[in-house]
Amino acid sequence: MITSVANEKVKHIVQLRDKARLREEEGVFLVEGVRLFREVPKERVAECYVTEHGVELLGFVPEGAEMVNDTVMAKMSDVKTPQGVLALVKRREYGWGDLLQNKAPLLLMAEDLQDPGNLGTIFRTAEAAGVDGIILSKGCADVYQPKVVRSTMGAVLRLPFLTVESIPECFEKLKQNGVTVYAAALTGKSVPYTDPDYTKGCAFLIGNEGNGLQASTITAAETAGQVVIIPMAGATESLNASVSAAVLLYEAARQRGFSAKKCNRSIDYC
Amino acid sequence: MITSVANEKVKHIVQLRDKARLREEEGVFLVEGVRLFREVPKERVAECYVTEHGVELLGFVPEGAEMVNDTVMAKMSDVKTPQGVLALVKRREYGWGDLLQNKAPLLLMAEDLQDPGNLGTIFRTAEAAGVDGIILSKGCADVYQPKVVRSTMGAVLRLPFLTVESIPECFEKLKQNGVTVYAAALTGKSVPYTDPDYTKGCAFLIGNEGNGLQASTITAAETAGQVVIIPMAGATESLNASVSAAVLLYEAARQRGFSAKKCNRSIDYC
Repeated sequence: MITSVANEKVKHIVQLRDKARLREEEGVFLVEGVRLFREVPKERVAECYVTEHGVELLGFVPEGAEMVNDTVMAKMSDVKTPQGVLALVKRREYGWGDLLQNKAPLLLMAEDLQDPGNLGTIFRTAEAAGVDGIILSKGCADVYQPKVVRSTMGAVLRLPFLTVESIPECFEKLKQNGVTVYAAALTGKSVPYTDPDYTKGCAFLIGNEGNGLQASTITAAETAGQVVIIPMAGATESLNASVSAAVLLYEAARQRGFSAKKCNRSIDYC
Repeated sequence: MITSVANEKVKHIVQLRDKARLREEEGVFLVEGVRLFREVPKERVAECYVTEHGVELLGFVPEGAEMVNDTVMAKMSDVKTPQGVLALVKRREYGWGDLLQNKAPLLLMAEDLQDPGNLGTIFRTAEAAGVDGIILSKGCADVYQPKVVRSTMGAVLRLPFLTVESIPECFEKLKQNGVTVYAAALTGKSVPYTDPDYTKGCAFLIGNEGNGLQASTITAAETAGQVVIIPMAGATESLNASVSAAVLLYEAARQRGFSAKKCNRSIDYC
């Protein structure tokens, strides 16, 4: 049992928790909590740490897991009240093929989305709406930071995603694959989001919480696809980013009839 | 200028910031920040405190405002980096008449919603979707706590809302006014949320983040109205509460054609 916070493995986990670059260099991220840990495919678990309490909650000691005491777990954990299960998980790299394997893909793109809670909620919502994959600009928050991982409720383990240098550079690739870009922004060319037909391949694009999409991205989107707005009543000036994504994606899902056949994935309606 | 954190007024503001009961007894709440302060009708401002920086941001000294130094503002403020404008605002009490003044009201009800960020986002989204008012069970988070007020982005100042002892006690009142209840829950009687006709009076009901609606509330809703589900693909087990509210409310708004005439309010589409 590891009982010292000065243990090298413990220090390493703390560094991986706090440093995005180190996580990326090592191709790993941290997963905490019983529920989320259960979602991780065995072969992706690189290291695992459990407390007695964690073992009780899990009902078993994971293969290769190391026991730690509560002080050590508290040191490594990103949450106030750790459940006592923490794993170092190998990343899975996705390619365009993963996002474009269906005939009429439903994709979500985000440019410079900064809030970890928003990003996590967007993953969770996207999976529920039947999205095939997510494309993020490199200016977005790190998907693998602990708070984002938690907020995805496991969707980060299941939903393919890519990080790209810039969003407009994807437009040609998407077009070649029959995917139309629908950017959420207000311009002279904007149409209500309920107007277009989303039953063909489509990629919704949302921007930064405070500033929306970059001007150059909007211009590129007007040429490559269409610019859409979500009508707003009252004095509200904007919607929360994850709320906007939800409204757009569920309109596409509605038009597609929430059909398992159409989006060609295992669907379990709740 | 107030320069001491021991000043009685300062201590009073701190107590009002932290104590829901005191806020309720005095019928007030705190509003912070330049943008939000600008939304407050003058006659509702009971006290106002500004720093030099706050005055610079505002461009003027509000009538009756007291100058405070940065230390005092930091003491009173609920945020890490105060803008230097803080007001004590009188509550406005709403009645059923405010919620039911339109022919086909669009309402939102929430039972035991606990997360302040969710509650605030729901106010913001509800206003944007053209909701006429919100009904909250007394088990919900306090609308007037500073974090909720901030997250509403001002909607708390504009959107009528009621707090009720229990949600099912409203069902009869709603029925009498031609408003059908649509409760978000999974039962044998649930239909996809896209099935019903929402162009008549309707009230969407969402539950607690972790536990959903109370069993007795669901049963009552099945009799009083209809139970609806949001279909979910993948392994997602649930949607975030504010995301669920957004999907439901915007489906109603879509069916209603986002029409200013239909919901009889001042609508400024963005």
